[in-house]
Amino acid sequence: MAEKKKIGILGASGYTGAELVRLLLRHPRVEIALLTADRRAGQMMGDVFPQFAPYYLPRLVTIDEVDWANAGLDLVFCALPHATTQKVLKDVLAKAPGIKVVDLSADFRLEDPAAYAKWYGHEHHALELQKEAVYGLVEVYRRDIKKARLVANPGCYTTCAQLPLVPLLKAKAIESDEIVIDAKSGMTGAGRSAKEEMLFSEVSEGFHAYGVGQHRHMAELDQEFSKAAGKDVVVSFTPHLTPMNRGIFSTIYVRGRRGKIAQDLHEILAKQYEKEPFVHVLPFGKAPQSRHVRGSNMTFIGVVADRVPGRAIIISTLDNLTKGASGQAVQNMNLVLGFAETLGIDQPPMFP
Amino acid sequence: MAEKKKIGILGASGYTGAELVRLLLRHPRVEIALLTADRRAGQMMGDVFPQFAPYYLPRLVTIDEVDWANAGLDLVFCALPHATTQKVLKDVLAKAPGIKVVDLSADFRLEDPAAYAKWYGHEHHALELQKEAVYGLVEVYRRDIKKARLVANPGCYTTCAQLPLVPLLKAKAIESDEIVIDAKSGMTGAGRSAKEEMLFSEVSEGFHAYGVGQHRHMAELDQEFSKAAGKDVVVSFTPHLTPMNRGIFSTIYVRGRRGKIAQDLHEILAKQYEKEPFVHVLPFGKAPQSRHVRGSNMTFIGVVADRVPGRAIIISTLDNLTKGASGQAVQNMNLVLGFAETLGIDQPPMFP
Amino acid sequence: MAEKKKIGILGASGYTGAELVRLLLRHPRVEIALLTADRRAGQMMGDVFPQFAPYYLPRLVTIDEVDWANAGLDLVFCALPHATTQKVLKDVLAKAPGIKVVDLSADFRLEDPAAYAKWYGHEHHALELQKEAVYGLVEVYRRDIKKARLVANPGCYTTCAQLPLVPLLKAKAIESDEIVIDAKSGMTGAGRSAKEEMLFSEVSEGFHAYGVGQHRHMAELDQEFSKAAGKDVVVSFTPHLTPMNRGIFSTIYVRGRRGKIAQDLHEILAKQYEKEPFVHVLPFGKAPQSRHVRGSNMTFIGVVADRVPGRAIIISTLDNLTKGASGQAVQNMNLVLGFAETLGIDQPPMFP
Amino acid sequence: MAEKKKIGILGASGYTGAELVRLLLRHPRVEIALLTADRRAGQMMGDVFPQFAPYYLPRLVTIDEVDWANAGLDLVFCALPHATTQKVLKDVLAKAPGIKVVDLSADFRLEDPAAYAKWYGHEHHALELQKEAVYGLVEVYRRDIKKARLVANPGCYTTCAQLPLVPLLKAKAIESDEIVIDAKSGMTGAGRSAKEEMLFSEVSEGFHAYGVGQHRHMAELDQEFSKAAGKDVVVSFTPHLTPMNRGIFSTIYVRGRRGKIAQDLHEILAKQYEKEPFVHVLPFGKAPQSRHVRGSNMTFIGVVADRVPGRAIIISTLDNLTKGASGQAVQNMNLVLGFAETLGIDQPPMFP
Repeated sequence: MAEKKKIGILGASGYTGAELVRLLLRHPRVEIALLTADRRAGQMMGDVFPQFAPYYLPRLVTIDEVDWANAGLDLVFCALPHATTQKVLKDVLAKAPGIKVVDLSADFRLEDPAAYAKWYGHEHHALELQKEAVYGLVEVYRRDIKKARLVANPGCYTTCAQLPLVPLLKAKAIESDEIVIDAKSGMTGAGRSAKEEMLFSEVSEGFHAYGVGQHRHMAELDQEFSKAAGKDVVVSFTPHLTPMNRGIFSTIYVRGRRGKIAQDLHEILAKQYEKEPFVHVLPFGKAPQSRHVRGSNMTFIGVVADRVPGRAIIISTLDNLTKGASGQAVQNMNLVLGFAETLGIDQPPMFP
Repeated sequence: MAEKKKIGILGASGYTGAELVRLLLRHPRVEIALLTADRRAGQMMGDVFPQFAPYYLPRLVTIDEVDWANAGLDLVFCALPHATTQKVLKDVLAKAPGIKVVDLSADFRLEDPAAYAKWYGHEHHALELQKEAVYGLVEVYRRDIKKARLVANPGCYTTCAQLPLVPLLKAKAIESDEIVIDAKSGMTGAGRSAKEEMLFSEVSEGFHAYGVGQHRHMAELDQEFSKAAGKDVVVSFTPHLTPMNRGIFSTIYVRGRRGKIAQDLHEILAKQYEKEPFVHVLPFGKAPQSRHVRGSNMTFIGVVADRVPGRAIIISTLDNLTKGASGQAVQNMNLVLGFAETLGIDQPPMFP
Repeated sequence: MAEKKKIGILGASGYTGAELVRLLLRHPRVEIALLTADRRAGQMMGDVFPQFAPYYLPRLVTIDEVDWANAGLDLVFCALPHATTQKVLKDVLAKAPGIKVVDLSADFRLEDPAAYAKWYGHEHHALELQKEAVYGLVEVYRRDIKKARLVANPGCYTTCAQLPLVPLLKAKAIESDEIVIDAKSGMTGAGRSAKEEMLFSEVSEGFHAYGVGQHRHMAELDQEFSKAAGKDVVVSFTPHLTPMNRGIFSTIYVRGRRGKIAQDLHEILAKQYEKEPFVHVLPFGKAPQSRHVRGSNMTFIGVVADRVPGRAIIISTLDNLTKGASGQAVQNMNLVLGFAETLGIDQPPMFP
Repeated sequence: MAEKKKIGILGASGYTGAELVRLLLRHPRVEIALLTADRRAGQMMGDVFPQFAPYYLPRLVTIDEVDWANAGLDLVFCALPHATTQKVLKDVLAKAPGIKVVDLSADFRLEDPAAYAKWYGHEHHALELQKEAVYGLVEVYRRDIKKARLVANPGCYTTCAQLPLVPLLKAKAIESDEIVIDAKSGMTGAGRSAKEEMLFSEVSEGFHAYGVGQHRHMAELDQEFSKAAGKDVVVSFTPHLTPMNRGIFSTIYVRGRRGKIAQDLHEILAKQYEKEPFVHVLPFGKAPQSRHVRGSNMTFIGVVADRVPGRAIIISTLDNLTKGASGQAVQNMNLVLGFAETLGIDQPPMFP
């Protein structure tokens, strides 16, 4: 049996950290060698996430405690907040330049420093790394990712919207100035920090939108859609929270271009994803449900004709913690470390 | 104290029936004199809905058992399935022509018999009554309703979409051919019949669309939006189910017409609904949540500027069982019977 | 029409505060004249609870801003945390001795200062008021409450357990040393403070116990059960949290005494509560569901024979925010101010 | 690589069938060679459970279509309703005597035909097989299971209660006539059949008990507890439904025997399960949560001292579809087919 690669997780006390641990514990080629969580340092992972109490895992430490040069790590997942991330990774890669990184924050997703400054309200502090970073949407950038040292794992909303829309924009099959993305997320997308508006009693039995007209994920969509279309694309995008834990569900309204109708769009997507292990295009006219991808790395996509002539409704859904975050991060790790792409993330969805 | 009017409810064993009972039990000017439920006839309402066990209510009977000419009823709510409804009401009004009716089905909402036949798959069997029926969206047709014998209570999705869009279409403030309505409903909207796809384990912890591209509510929207705009309007409309009991939440994407921007649309709606007791327009830029209207007859509307120039996002939310069905039905009853419009339906929302 | 009494609510930004506002807004004999919320002072109630945006309500102020002597208030509800409560009310009643108080905290429920000190970890700071306070379980202490200035509104868990058990202990119909109370609460019982363990993603899709073996509500149960039995009673009591908003559901295991069997226990309770407006005893052998009392001031009680000879299972359920807190507080207010006991709290439950 | 064993699943269209498919799809030593579902025969598994659409699986057939003698199956899981099961398995084993069977129904769990007749209302129709069947609670009957042809997989409630109580009864550490088991189950425990009382709108936002005083699972508990104690044991047991999908949570009230206190009980269980892969005993005084075992084959057990002297509260929780049904069934398969016991069922829990 091949030796296992040593993996670290920075920011292990959040939901994406827990999801990484869940997936990596049964990955046959890696071992979890480092877990950091500044505020919970000294505790065991089972204190922070009791589901892991029966498993052997390293004790949580602070990031400052790590001796990067001698830690012997092959790859680090970074699940820290944006802004913090760029400072930490700059330091880590200075001390241990040979280490590979898959970053789950938004810090290295935007190629244009001006776009970063506009949406995040401050200058980027690791511009050299930004230049080096490869955007980790595997189905689009697989080749580049294999050679990357630093992968910027895409956001959950944006992965869900890009997988159906990038091929259609590349094929110039839809009008790029009439795209409406109505996205709904489960509550884990909002993270684990204690905020009144995320209490069970506040968010159960109800539905709401947030960041209407101005959500940060738009910057990532703008960048990737514009690259795909070969011209500036600005979409209407509204994120919502729905009372469930896991899942992103995007209802996307488009108009076919140059006579393309819904069936044509379906054909493009079906062909594009025929051999992809983690994207499943339903038969034409069928719409997927978020629950049927839960816990898996799958994205399900459906295409339906709208009754308005020339228009189509595309539905795309994935698990925000898996394909929308930690599962895709492991997929990226597999590419970076030269493993089979599906290793450790090929378990079927869990429904009910 | 004025004598109480005698009220009947046909189809009392469904959710809209129960909601009517809840509201009417504390209405100061009416008494519930008749409850029908063919399959539960002979039982008490407390057997069908245990929350009513402590209250005095008439025993459930079949519709056939009712002696309409001598029942002494002033008004009947009809909460039966479509198609059945038109047969029953034709019979009731033939036997008791003086009775008033508020119908909660879709049977009398469509003015055009051809539209009915197209969407419901059969000829309409009570065309005379269809001609007589008044469409019961109070905020639009208040005057006509006061004089009506037969009121067609609007659908839940359509009420939620019409309240913000009808004034904007009337004012020619938005483009009528670029409207996208992305609507989310709680599960009670799907009724009380035992279907696998409505089981808790099927619909909790997930989100899905249904009737994509072809939902029956579209006929009602087409009719009313075309009337408001003075020309044919066909919108994109997608209904979804979200794991909560009550609430409709509509995210509506529009483009301003002739230079109108989001603030202009907000101003039109704010002015329109300034004095309406059951429509509340939030300050510009604010988005409502479905939970904050739960159990009440309120509709909350918010208008936000989209970042795409010229476009706006309008959010409208109501409780599908109250303003979307039984509450609006009582509002219609109040008009028809000459009561104050808010009687019995002025309780505040229940949150949490 | 009689003049309306002026009411204040201290601590209006929590869930019990909101529930008081919901009930009092439609109470025909009172007006809300004061709302305090120290951390939200200066805001409108609609900023803190958007469901109240359409209603006229006084702006939130700090407690220190209130000029008690000249505020003209007839009665104050106190929905503050324990310990704080006793200091605030001592001050309020010193400055405005004629004011009536219904306190929703635990501060004035325990007659024995030693019990208070043991369970709450500090001396009681308003012992004189403690002596004066009347325990507000209406169905037991109605007469005393009518004459009270300060009413200690009972806890939600304890109301739910006392209503079935106090009459049985008084009748010496059950063994007092074999009582097991397994209680389940909705999440609103945990209040509105932002704690990680109350986030939607933490508490949905799961079930757990807390305070196992040592919950503070036990002190209140001990006191009232011992009074009812005429000897020391110590029960086994375990509170749990279940993923719903409202409702307490108690499964109570008892053994009949001196040959009393389940039917006998049912008979005692049925007779006891025959004329009570807010306690409904189901037919023998039937078990209630929490959802069927939601939003109302009702308690539903069922008695079933256990298959173990001599044992019975009693199920009691109420809405923790209504009969378990604010509804019972209004019931107490009605008694204290001489109104009909059911005024403003007689709306039927809301299901679904 | 060793050749894969061929597996069949009878009754694949229910939740336990789907869970078996989820687990077996990634089991390294088996392949799914047969799936039956009489009412869905002819369809693909992806039509019945869309999450499996991307996976290769045999088309659903009726049981009658199967040529048992030539099907080449090594083992069959039977996930059919009780009563049907005994007829089907009698036939299957007559035609293919060499096949191994893990049965998930209640049909072969009760050793005493009289007990079966009493609780299920009819004679047992496969008494010979009943004699042969081995009760499949692995942690108790591991040795017998390894040699079995027909394993009766335990019920979900009973597994959850037996794992903590059997060792304590065997050790005579608790009083056997004062055991109270208050059990709460997620909704998947009620199966996938379309019943009004299982609709989302009926069971969300509420809590209820069912089968109070008389649930069929009691027969299984009686049998196993009496065997463990060496005398007749009859417990108080109440099942409840809580609004979540997966999980059984049992709060168990016991009295120590011969001076045994809660710590002693904890020590017995901690020692008993020290090396068991699927039972985790928490540190003394800690209580587990159902969500922390979700999707896994783990049982978490906690022991806490009650404040009532001599009494303890034991909490046991597992996922009803995994350790409570299909996971334990795979565990039994692993024993019967000679695989490592944890193969295919060692994935960590999924939280959140």
